[in-house]
Amino acid sequence: MRFDRHSPIGVFDSGVGGLTVLKALIERLPLESTVYLGDTARVPYGTKSGEVVTKYSLANADVLLEYGVKLLVVACNTASAVALPALREALPIPVVGVIAPGAALAAHTTKTGKIAVIGTPGTIASGAYQEALASIRTGLEVHTQACPLFVPLAEEGWTEGQVPSLVAEQYLTRGLLGPGFDTLVLGCTHYPLLSDVIQRVVGPGVTLVDSARATADRVAEVLNERDLLKKERLATERHYLVTDTPNRFIEVGARFLGHSISGARQIDLKLKG
Amino acid sequence: MRFDRHSPIGVFDSGVGGLTVLKALIERLPLESTVYLGDTARVPYGTKSGEVVTKYSLANADVLLEYGVKLLVVACNTASAVALPALREALPIPVVGVIAPGAALAAHTTKTGKIAVIGTPGTIASGAYQEALASIRTGLEVHTQACPLFVPLAEEGWTEGQVPSLVAEQYLTRGLLGPGFDTLVLGCTHYPLLSDVIQRVVGPGVTLVDSARATADRVAEVLNERDLLKKERLATERHYLVTDTPNRFIEVGARFLGHSISGARQIDLKLKG
Repeated sequence: MRFDRHSPIGVFDSGVGGLTVLKALIERLPLESTVYLGDTARVPYGTKSGEVVTKYSLANADVLLEYGVKLLVVACNTASAVALPALREALPIPVVGVIAPGAALAAHTTKTGKIAVIGTPGTIASGAYQEALASIRTGLEVHTQACPLFVPLAEEGWTEGQVPSLVAEQYLTRGLLGPGFDTLVLGCTHYPLLSDVIQRVVGPGVTLVDSARATADRVAEVLNERDLLKKERLATERHYLVTDTPNRFIEVGARFLGHSISGARQIDLKLKG
Repeated sequence: MRFDRHSPIGVFDSGVGGLTVLKALIERLPLESTVYLGDTARVPYGTKSGEVVTKYSLANADVLLEYGVKLLVVACNTASAVALPALREALPIPVVGVIAPGAALAAHTTKTGKIAVIGTPGTIASGAYQEALASIRTGLEVHTQACPLFVPLAEEGWTEGQVPSLVAEQYLTRGLLGPGFDTLVLGCTHYPLLSDVIQRVVGPGVTLVDSARATADRVAEVLNERDLLKKERLATERHYLVTDTPNRFIEVGARFLGHSISGARQIDLKLKG
């Protein structure tokens, strides 16, 4: 598959969560065309095994390659945590995940050296954030906590009020995060929708780190290094693909993207093995 | 595929929820062998489209047919709500869903004639309970409410305490159920795990209807009519199949089945179209 500066950037996620990353990408690189794939027929990934998430990730990438993408953004922490090596081995294009940029930002943000990371069970169990943080800076104290109910809360739009506050309290104050952290990594693309509630629970002394913008910066860097940045204002296209029927994606997705989605095409994944 | 009285009963669900139906089936028909399939690589079904749930249901049935099952139990309300016609057309064996037995039990239980039904967005949107109740008895007043957060709460084991109570209050008292119902159908196989919380919110005057036992009774009836009941104590087998890795199913499933699961085999679904 040939690609050049005019080729689109491919972005995939298990569903709508990755639209928070797409949003940052469009803000950072407004001239670039994008193809976003939400695997809504198999969502969520965060409670599934690494083996299955890797299989789905490879199938998502295959679809985006058919669209001639010049770079792949894995806009899902769970897939970034478990599938990046397999994706990088299989694909002829650069692959950018959300974990390394988020970890780098957290390592630069913390003053106390104590970082808390929250994410799906799959992301937390993988140890990917712990590993990424250790490789960036030694001596950091990292505590993690899986928050499985945050994804359904964000998907349902229950992002304010008593229920999300209570759930956040259970995870963030009675959990395993320990005392003294000044930086909290939102290690799931759904979590920025709950950032008001989360900030209130952890208090104003803690900085929330969302990897969306850091990931967009990394994409800009990689494209620039390879002279693949699109520079013309013309012919910027936005495509949305989903594996389930598009209605719910279009409806819920607007909340994540921050503006309405005009349409999405339903496709089938070809799963191997 | 040949089957006889010694053939197993096949049961499928999107994941662990259907184990509440399997449990009732084993209690009602302890001599029968069973093969349970949980489609854990694609769970949940309740927030997905009828089209996709039907495709998954047909693939689940194909796997169970390979095990020589003599009857198929669709132990998932969402799949029962949208996929029964397609399954009955495709399969050479009787197919029993959970909605008709649950609706019949509710229609016999209510004294006021006002019935409330809660379920997944897919089940409620399908109108399957409303249709089933109308076909059993005219003049019933039926109100429904989708409760999407109940499934993740049950899956995570958050079945007691403040969070599930508050979520249940939001759904059941501020929702669309209206006043005066004396019967509440738990229209999702996950909900029996939350029955204590739900009962407390709706009050002691409301009878909760769980279709698991009614479904097991219906299975016994169908097998008896066709002289397919197994009568020997010998060679009763329990098989568990899953589409994701088995660990989480075995761990969470015990909560639904009421006793531990010794092992589960990971399989692949062959999806068509």
